[in-house]
Amino acid sequence: MKAPNKIAHIGIAVKSIEETLPFYTEQLGLTLLGMEEVPSEQVKVAFLEIGESRIELLEPLSVESPIAKFMEKRGEGIHHIALDVDNVEERLERLKENGIPLIHEKPKEGAHNAQIAFLHPKAAKGVLVELCQYPH
Amino acid sequence: MKAPNKIAHIGIAVKSIEETLPFYTEQLGLTLLGMEEVPSEQVKVAFLEIGESRIELLEPLSVESPIAKFMEKRGEGIHHIALDVDNVEERLERLKENGIPLIHEKPKEGAHNAQIAFLHPKAAKGVLVELCQYPH
Repeated sequence: MKAPNKIAHIGIAVKSIEETLPFYTEQLGLTLLGMEEVPSEQVKVAFLEIGESRIELLEPLSVESPIAKFMEKRGEGIHHIALDVDNVEERLERLKENGIPLIHEKPKEGAHNAQIAFLHPKAAKGVLVELCQYPH
Repeated sequence: MKAPNKIAHIGIAVKSIEETLPFYTEQLGLTLLGMEEVPSEQVKVAFLEIGESRIELLEPLSVESPIAKFMEKRGEGIHHIALDVDNVEERLERLKENGIPLIHEKPKEGAHNAQIAFLHPKAAKGVLVELCQYPH
């Protein structure tokens, strides 16, 4: 299997983007690329540029949001790592064949027209890994 | 303040590199760049290449290791994010002036002759951030 291209983003669960953002922009000097709401995940996202990757701050829009549920158990902090790959569907098939537990067995549409899928955190001993394939 | 150059690495706390590595190499297709022991931190590290960044698997060498203490509280999972910066000493001074809590107020020598420093996790609401300056 070809290596993933890069870290697409690191997703960080926060209670409030407004309260957290100044640390990343003013203290670390990162550039805010944009902000958007993803109603299907009940989450608001702030995108920060870092080299070829991004840091994404994830704020829940409701208590039903997966991010709200994560923070209930674990508090604020790093939620997942997303890897940029070329062939998400083929990868998921292969991972499934190899017995790797998956949250999504087929890719679904994510932000920026990406095809995305989450592996089950058991797959990587507690690390939640997302695969993202971007259109060329 | 100039933006950090890139994500230097994501540090992941694991009980056993031997048990965890096959997921990253065989299932995700990442390349293992090397492995080393850092006696001062009582940790064994496996370096995996991902684009311009690395994933570092961190296995404690003793119960005194900061990684062992982290896992006692939180279990296996993402331990820290390291950012590649040009001017670690100046950044630490500025962060200190701005009242940002730091673990290291002065850089110390890390692996690969880097000058490194950890911010206190309170600085980033639970995310442990490391700054790394590499020799040119």
